[in-house]
Amino acid sequence: MILTVTLNTALDLSYAVPALVPHTSHRVGEVTERPGGKGVNVARVLTALGHDTVVTGFAGGPTGTVLRELLGTLPHRPTDALVTVAGNTRRTVAVVDRGTGDTTQLNEPGPHITAGEWADLLLTYRELLPGAEAVALCGSLPPGIHVGAYTELIRLARAAGVPVLLDTAGEPLRRGIAARPDLVKPNTDELAQLTGALEPLRAAHDARRRGAHSVVASLGAEGLIAVTPDGAWRAAPPAAVRGNPTGAGDSVVAGLLSALAEGLGWEDRLRRAVALSTATVLAPAAGEFDRAAYEDLSARVTVEPHPPAD
Amino acid sequence: MILTVTLNTALDLSYAVPALVPHTSHRVGEVTERPGGKGVNVARVLTALGHDTVVTGFAGGPTGTVLRELLGTLPHRPTDALVTVAGNTRRTVAVVDRGTGDTTQLNEPGPHITAGEWADLLLTYRELLPGAEAVALCGSLPPGIHVGAYTELIRLARAAGVPVLLDTAGEPLRRGIAARPDLVKPNTDELAQLTGALEPLRAAHDARRRGAHSVVASLGAEGLIAVTPDGAWRAAPPAAVRGNPTGAGDSVVAGLLSALAEGLGWEDRLRRAVALSTATVLAPAAGEFDRAAYEDLSARVTVEPHPPAD
Repeated sequence: MILTVTLNTALDLSYAVPALVPHTSHRVGEVTERPGGKGVNVARVLTALGHDTVVTGFAGGPTGTVLRELLGTLPHRPTDALVTVAGNTRRTVAVVDRGTGDTTQLNEPGPHITAGEWADLLLTYRELLPGAEAVALCGSLPPGIHVGAYTELIRLARAAGVPVLLDTAGEPLRRGIAARPDLVKPNTDELAQLTGALEPLRAAHDARRRGAHSVVASLGAEGLIAVTPDGAWRAAPPAAVRGNPTGAGDSVVAGLLSALAEGLGWEDRLRRAVALSTATVLAPAAGEFDRAAYEDLSARVTVEPHPPAD
Repeated sequence: MILTVTLNTALDLSYAVPALVPHTSHRVGEVTERPGGKGVNVARVLTALGHDTVVTGFAGGPTGTVLRELLGTLPHRPTDALVTVAGNTRRTVAVVDRGTGDTTQLNEPGPHITAGEWADLLLTYRELLPGAEAVALCGSLPPGIHVGAYTELIRLARAAGVPVLLDTAGEPLRRGIAARPDLVKPNTDELAQLTGALEPLRAAHDARRRGAHSVVASLGAEGLIAVTPDGAWRAAPPAAVRGNPTGAGDSVVAGLLSALAEGLGWEDRLRRAVALSTATVLAPAAGEFDRAAYEDLSARVTVEPHPPAD
C-alpha cells in the first residue's frame, strides 16, 4: 500500500468562461467538482496505475462531505482514511478561458485545524505507516498547523523505515527538508526560493546538502532532473506538448512513488514520472492522464546521466 | 406577510484578494458565505425592516443545505418555504480586490429543475399567496424552467388579488411583462434591452405599454424614476455615495414592497427605496444596509414629479 497525506484537501471547482475579464460579471458555462489537494490527486493516479493506495489528511464541513462522496465514486478509488475536522474543507476555483485554456486559480485558505485534530491525524498516520511501502506528504498546510508539521511526519516515517517523499513549498519545505526526507520534488521556482540558486542542477545539489537524500526537480515541459546518491539524470519527453498542466506535478510524484514501490531503479522511475506527467498535460480533464499517451510515451522518454554542475 | 420567490437561489461566496490578475494563481485571504439570490436578499432586508417575510423558490444538494442553514441563523430570519430539489443549488463567487473594492463576479448556472419540481413550486406558491400582502418574483431562471415561468406566477398572483413585482431581465422580463405585473424594476440597461429606447423615461413609458402597470427604473447612483398610473416621479439621494453596489437593487425592491404593504403612496415608497439602496451601498458587507444611514437618508431623499418625456 502507498500512503498519501494531504493536510489541506480541497474541493476543486472548475468554471468554464468565454474569457475572464476583471471587474465584470461572468455566467459560468460549465461547472465541474473534483476531490482535490495534491495528495488526493497523487492517490488517484496511483490507483489508476493499479496500486493499493490510502489517503489521509483532514476533511470537514459540507465541502469535506462532498469531497469524500466524490472520492467514493471514482472509478479507481483510493481508501479514505481522512480525519474528520470541525472546519469546512476549502474550495479551489479554476476559471478556465474557453478556447485558450488559460486558467486563473483562486485557492481558499482552508479550515483552522485544532491541536486535538492534529493529534488525531498523528494517531491515524502512525497506524497506517507499518502497512505502507512509501508515503507522500503533499501540499500546503492549513491554518492552525505548525510550520514544522512535515518535520514530524518525516521523522515518524523514517523511524518506521518507510521511504518518504515531500512535495511542498516555502517554509514547510525548508523545515521539512532538514528532517532528511528520502525525496523532495520541487519545481524550479520552489527550488530557487529554497536555495537562492537559479540554476536547477546547482540548486538541487544545494537542496541535498540541506537534508534531502534525493532531489527531483521539475523543469515543466522540459522534463525532470534528478540528483541522488546514485547519480544525476535528466529525463525529457520526446517533444514538448501543449495542454493543461494542472496535476502534472502530482503525476510526477505518483510515477516516482509507484516505480519505487515496484523496486525499479532511478532511470525507470524518472521515465515513468515524465511519461505520466506528459500524459496528464495531454488529458482533456485537469488532473487525469491519457492512458494511451502514457503507454506510448513510456517507451520514448529519454533519460540521460546529467553532466556535473559547473 | 410578504412573499419573495427566488427560482435560482445561490450560495454567495465572497473572496478577498489583493488584486485579480487573469491567468495567475491567487491565495484567497478571506472567505464569506451568505444565503443569496435576489429574492433571498430582498427578504433579508424586509425582515430587517420588521416585516414578516416568507421565501420560496428552489434549494437542493449540499450547497442548498448550507444556504438553508445560513438562512436559519440570520439575526432577522425570513420563513423558509423553499422547495427541495435533487440538483445542487448554484454558487456565485464575488472576487473582491482589496483596497479598491472592485468586484469580479462568477455565477454558476444553477441546477436543472424537473417538471415535477416546478409543479411542487406551484403548489407551494398557491398555498402561500392567500396570506401574502405582496409578492416579489426575483432573478434569473435556472436550467429546465420554461421561459414563461414568471408569466404563470404573475397570473396566479393577480388571480389571488396580490400585488406582484417582477425583477428580472432579458427574455423572462419580456415574457413576464405581458402578463401585466403591478410593478417591474429594471435598471437602465435592462430597460433599454427590453424596449430599444435608451432614454429611461421614454423606455419606462414603453414598458408600461407592454403590460407593466408601473415601472420603477434604477438609474444607479442617481436614484430612481417611476412611471405609474398616478403620475411620474424622480427620486434621488442628497448626494452620490461611494461603496459596494451589490444588493442595492434588491434593497429598492424591499423598500417599494414594504412601503406598499404599509399602505404608503408612491412618493413615500420611492423615498424609502432610494434611502435603503443608498444605505446598502454604504454598508461594509455586500447586501446589508447601514441602519443609521438609512434613517438619516429617509428624511433627505428628494422626490419630485418627473417632467413629461419630450
